[in-house]
Amino acid sequence: MEKQEINNQQLSVGQCKARLNAIADALHVIGGKWKLRIIVALKEGNKRFNELQRLIDGISARVLSAELKELELNGFVKRNVHSGMSVTVEYELTAYSETLDSVLQSLSEWGAMHKDKVRKSLHEGNLV
Amino acid sequence: MEKQEINNQQLSVGQCKARLNAIADALHVIGGKWKLRIIVALKEGNKRFNELQRLIDGISARVLSAELKELELNGFVKRNVHSGMSVTVEYELTAYSETLDSVLQSLSEWGAMHKDKVRKSLHEGNLV
Repeated sequence: MEKQEINNQQLSVGQCKARLNAIADALHVIGGKWKLRIIVALKEGNKRFNELQRLIDGISARVLSAELKELELNGFVKRNVHSGMSVTVEYELTAYSETLDSVLQSLSEWGAMHKDKVRKSLHEGNLV
Repeated sequence: MEKQEINNQQLSVGQCKARLNAIADALHVIGGKWKLRIIVALKEGNKRFNELQRLIDGISARVLSAELKELELNGFVKRNVHSGMSVTVEYELTAYSETLDSVLQSLSEWGAMHKDKVRKSLHEGNLV
């Protein structure tokens, strides 16, 4: 039985399966520890590899390199090669990366809210 | 220099760092392949361990068990033990898990949109 009304607290079996698939599809492309963070780092402006690595706490060169390749392959990032006195490579967001804006917005709002809650709970001496 | 105006396309250095931290905080708690999917599966109603495992494609019992423990620890899931003729254990979402609704909504909308785009691109013979 499909419910017509969408209720946050309860999904029908069909809605639940559709949402499970959609979330699995999203996480397949932008899941993991780093991809969304690389995209956010590039929101401040185009960056070279070393600049990105400095900005993203804890990422190794090997992982950053692999993640950038996947982001390029999936159409979120463009790799620009400038050849002047020396060759420089810069990474730039594509227009398609903007489709992630509401994901980034809700995730960062939630992260800030949750951190605040955990901080308050620790202060009050109870964890949840 | 802080920009007053928030522009999707460009964040100031300060905004970018704040957002990077908030997203890292969020992914620390709800990142990974499974946690959000377990929460979505429970949106359809309380479930036993085996029901959850059947609903979430590809998760092993060992991983599901570990993920449920973490979700419980972080206040998203409640473990209910019913002792009747035999003891049954059911997992239930807490009220706090509802704070993730907009994350789940934006992520599943994006996943559905992206899958549709990839399908169309493949049909047209170009990937991005």
